[in-house]
Amino acid sequence: MNETVYDSSVSEVGLYEGKLVRLKGWLYNKRSSGKVLFIILRDGTGTIQCVVSRADIGEDSFLTIDRLNQESSLIIEGRVRKDPRAPGGYEIGVTGFSVVAAAFPDYPISLKEHGIEFLLDHRHLWIRTPRQRAILAIRAEVMKACRDFLDGEGFIEVDAPILTPSACEGTTTLFSTDYFGEKAFLSQSGQLYNEAAIMALGRVYCFGPAFRAEKSKTRRHLTEFWMVEPEAAFMEFEELLGLEERMVTYVVEKVLQNREKELVLVGRNPEDLREVKPPFPRMTYDEAIKVLNEQGFEISWGEDFGAPHETALASLHRKPLFITHYPTQIKAFYMKPDPDRPEVVLGADLLAPEGYGEIIGGGERIADYDLLKQRLEENRLPAEDYGWYLDLRKYGSVPHSGFGMGIERLVTWICRLEHVRETIPFPRMLTRLRP
Amino acid sequence: MNETVYDSSVSEVGLYEGKLVRLKGWLYNKRSSGKVLFIILRDGTGTIQCVVSRADIGEDSFLTIDRLNQESSLIIEGRVRKDPRAPGGYEIGVTGFSVVAAAFPDYPISLKEHGIEFLLDHRHLWIRTPRQRAILAIRAEVMKACRDFLDGEGFIEVDAPILTPSACEGTTTLFSTDYFGEKAFLSQSGQLYNEAAIMALGRVYCFGPAFRAEKSKTRRHLTEFWMVEPEAAFMEFEELLGLEERMVTYVVEKVLQNREKELVLVGRNPEDLREVKPPFPRMTYDEAIKVLNEQGFEISWGEDFGAPHETALASLHRKPLFITHYPTQIKAFYMKPDPDRPEVVLGADLLAPEGYGEIIGGGERIADYDLLKQRLEENRLPAEDYGWYLDLRKYGSVPHSGFGMGIERLVTWICRLEHVRETIPFPRMLTRLRP
Repeated sequence: MNETVYDSSVSEVGLYEGKLVRLKGWLYNKRSSGKVLFIILRDGTGTIQCVVSRADIGEDSFLTIDRLNQESSLIIEGRVRKDPRAPGGYEIGVTGFSVVAAAFPDYPISLKEHGIEFLLDHRHLWIRTPRQRAILAIRAEVMKACRDFLDGEGFIEVDAPILTPSACEGTTTLFSTDYFGEKAFLSQSGQLYNEAAIMALGRVYCFGPAFRAEKSKTRRHLTEFWMVEPEAAFMEFEELLGLEERMVTYVVEKVLQNREKELVLVGRNPEDLREVKPPFPRMTYDEAIKVLNEQGFEISWGEDFGAPHETALASLHRKPLFITHYPTQIKAFYMKPDPDRPEVVLGADLLAPEGYGEIIGGGERIADYDLLKQRLEENRLPAEDYGWYLDLRKYGSVPHSGFGMGIERLVTWICRLEHVRETIPFPRMLTRLRP
Repeated sequence: MNETVYDSSVSEVGLYEGKLVRLKGWLYNKRSSGKVLFIILRDGTGTIQCVVSRADIGEDSFLTIDRLNQESSLIIEGRVRKDPRAPGGYEIGVTGFSVVAAAFPDYPISLKEHGIEFLLDHRHLWIRTPRQRAILAIRAEVMKACRDFLDGEGFIEVDAPILTPSACEGTTTLFSTDYFGEKAFLSQSGQLYNEAAIMALGRVYCFGPAFRAEKSKTRRHLTEFWMVEPEAAFMEFEELLGLEERMVTYVVEKVLQNREKELVLVGRNPEDLREVKPPFPRMTYDEAIKVLNEQGFEISWGEDFGAPHETALASLHRKPLFITHYPTQIKAFYMKPDPDRPEVVLGADLLAPEGYGEIIGGGERIADYDLLKQRLEENRLPAEDYGWYLDLRKYGSVPHSGFGMGIERLVTWICRLEHVRETIPFPRMLTRLRP
């Protein structure tokens, strides 16, 4: 009787130790000792060494596989052997294989170093390298953890529209399109729509792409990025900060639980992340200005932080840091002024440690109709575009709060990357719309 | 000692039978018998009747609450009483309350009938009505079930870009924007990018908004809609149909499990949906043409189905129906021709029953480099835009398949609605970009 061959993925071969498995994947690398060929096979779940011996599979087969180019697709059968020296703890003793498609010989991404523009031009292939695969797997874990956390807290996913007739915070950095003869903008935030939705559903979140036509070329900017935006009725400022703290902690925990191997692969020491637990340190904007001045920065009360300021503040602690109570004049029109001190708002940014900077912006919103109307006028925002938004204060206004968390910045910090561009499958930047 | 008051949501009052609870919500409706006031309170989780007696709360308080307008926000304290006549099985005997914000008297959506354009103009308020809330809660359940199913099957979420330099299937129905001096289009599908991602991650899905600048004004069309698009390496046509079947079944099961109350509220008999179990009936395009001709439709082999044809076919069964093997000439360039009969493709649409029509389109993709190149040329698609897509066939091509499922059409069927516009929080249509 023939021995059973089990279909397996690379990450699950440990379940079949001593047994025969069938793996489907791509030839990532190979080296030869003449009689024995060591193949690194990769599939969607990881990489594994497969040992091919001339004696075991015969001369013809050996030559066939020896001639295969990098990235050729193949199906390998072999026995799972425990090997403590192997990265995943196992290797495959190949008993047979079939070539699905031999790759052309000119695969552009070799195992040597390439320049970043070259790699971005070949992003459709670059994502195959184990490091990029790991980052994308961590990204998916982060997104899933955000949703699981919010679903567990009674939030309901509500999709805010992307095509909008007006801007949440001014139109200078918006992409626009012709909408059957009318001008429409690509949304930067679903917050205002979330504020309508909480009056129907209590607690909601939107989770989708957001767009900024900013001409900045920094390591923190993408023109298209993903953002999760929770909003809750009857939630005040203090409760909001607790929610943010618990959510970031939950996300980090899930990544440690399910993607520790990938964290190590991208060069992040998991121990760093184990420190991310509530409570997160807090600092008011006033205190932050003082600290920055002491560090030699020339910044006065009332000015907004730039990247260097954020980096300096974000290097003070090993956990994310809340900066609270920003000046009302530099924050968005809908932020609720502190009743005890109306020149600052009940808003907070959360800065990731190690200099990474802002990952969350949020706060309590103005619930009072007259105040909101006044703030709209002060900001010269057209009443006709915001009539529906004012309606939310006319009919059953409630205290409410929310925040937006940028997925790519969060993943950049969690993976300890230099640049946000590697945290999204196909980055869009000032000079990049392809592939 | 004071009796404990439990914070509860409307949907969870059953946990506190006989006890005092605190509910936060909005006044949806009220009626008075002189001595007793019956209030319908709604929060994000449902509605409940609260009984206010003049004797219990005193004359002043009674008058205050009696004068409140619809949609006023308030916090109610009271005792949970079992009441089999009440819709949720419980009512509240009010012991006290506080008004958070009295609503203006002119709330536009009364409990009488309104025209659809009026309701859509007030979508930010319309979503508060129990029926609209129920549809949005079902939508969220559907989206969560899609993700949970795919995550459980080893698919990894990968976000395809929205801003793209070229079109997946022609540019006539695309919104465009100026991208720093270059023309960019809003994506209709992430499929081509998914095909790149499966070579890195094996099984992936994207889940985001898609855009069609179609000038059609039908009950099935939105210009902005959400789509989940799974794609899998090494998956062939038959396996794909099985995946679709299991996914639709899983989604329907989860809605029945978690949102049966909402289904009943929107007028869908849950028993109808309990029949949705594999296997789904199948029909080839050839057979479908024959059936349509027998029903009196004048349609010849090679023509695409219109809405009336789909409706007719989708009324034949009580389960979703696969139509397979469409003519190659009417399907997208990337669909794999049937090797035994190249004039038809290994593609299928899934039609929802009761005349609802297409909810899924999918199939096996062309894996062969030369054939794909030829198909691109036949379709006059510019080689420079599709070079990266051809690369996927040069370097480790594998058999692969995928599909796209439109969330709004799926929810329309599940909720048994007339029009797709109620299944998305803020619909975008030919003549509607607001609110």
